[in-house]
Amino acid sequence: MVRSNIKGRFIVFEGLDGCGKTTQAQLLADYFSCRGAEYLHVREPGGTDVGDKLRQILLDPDTVLTRWGEVLLLAAARAQLVQDVIRPALVRGMVVVCDRYLFSSLAYQGYGLRQDVELVRQINLEAVGGLMPDWTFLLDIEPDVGLARQANRRGLDRIEQRDEGFFQRVVEGYQLLAKEYGFITMDGTAPIQEIHRQVVDILESENTL
Amino acid sequence: MVRSNIKGRFIVFEGLDGCGKTTQAQLLADYFSCRGAEYLHVREPGGTDVGDKLRQILLDPDTVLTRWGEVLLLAAARAQLVQDVIRPALVRGMVVVCDRYLFSSLAYQGYGLRQDVELVRQINLEAVGGLMPDWTFLLDIEPDVGLARQANRRGLDRIEQRDEGFFQRVVEGYQLLAKEYGFITMDGTAPIQEIHRQVVDILESENTL
Repeated sequence: MVRSNIKGRFIVFEGLDGCGKTTQAQLLADYFSCRGAEYLHVREPGGTDVGDKLRQILLDPDTVLTRWGEVLLLAAARAQLVQDVIRPALVRGMVVVCDRYLFSSLAYQGYGLRQDVELVRQINLEAVGGLMPDWTFLLDIEPDVGLARQANRRGLDRIEQRDEGFFQRVVEGYQLLAKEYGFITMDGTAPIQEIHRQVVDILESENTL
Repeated sequence: MVRSNIKGRFIVFEGLDGCGKTTQAQLLADYFSCRGAEYLHVREPGGTDVGDKLRQILLDPDTVLTRWGEVLLLAAARAQLVQDVIRPALVRGMVVVCDRYLFSSLAYQGYGLRQDVELVRQINLEAVGGLMPDWTFLLDIEPDVGLARQANRRGLDRIEQRDEGFFQRVVEGYQLLAKEYGFITMDGTAPIQEIHRQVVDILESENTL
């Protein structure tokens, strides 16, 4: 019932920071733009007034925040983004490309921070009103590769400053989620254009584009 | 186990906006102060850096926030307050007087906004690490009395601007919670000093003070 009035297509990129998902989401958005398709490109957390305020709190290295508080703020930002932005776009028939979705909360805060995964899932399903993507692309990399990329680019935010054991648990969490939710897993160390080509091929083969 | 290292006493005031709980919490704090007792007086939401930022978002009449987002932000502020302020004070043996606690989320967002009460409860129990008050005083008033008091004082915030049906559901929610959690219910229309005297009598009779 949650998708009953939805005509658009919902595509999510997931993976560790530095895995290349932001680049791939942008390339895919550009692809839709060139084809004249109606599309929307959003990233989490943020994308709404409240979401942007929460993003600032969440990523500020000076923020002191309980682990559970982190789960809750991310889910609150997500609830707002889905209600105000993603769902209306899908109802209008647009393609929505989203950089991170609720799987990030399961992988990072559930598996990574060892919070109750089932409760994190329930909170987030409630937050998105049960809305799930049509395709989720997981860009798979080792933690040290991603962190090195991020550190070179712009330094690390609050969440990226965690220890390596944390990121290893996130990777393992993503692997469990990939099976459970049928992600399309791609090698995040492959050349950018090659990954993009594969993404487009998969979507074209399923008559999405 | 959650109270194993707690030596202090935890007292909560609950009720509708305008019921007089802030006044009563202050009078009780003053009472402890005059007796030279180590006490802490806090109010929700807020009381920490993150909590104060979330309080601003929550109460700003211009904020657009999903109902579920409201549940999550309140619980996040509460998690921070309990971890950083309330629990350490209780461990030190202080008396903590708190203006609102997780029962407000159950009454306002659960019953009032008709969100899933059980899920709201789980989220909040996780947020406070299972910490429950020793005494909860519920100041009982009719919604129109409380709202009239608040409007006269300082105008209404975002949550207080809701319709009367909402506040009626909050009152009924508090009545259910009072039975479930053994609140001490007091007539919020009684004279302020009389209510204060009753509160002190109850606490003294149980050898708290």
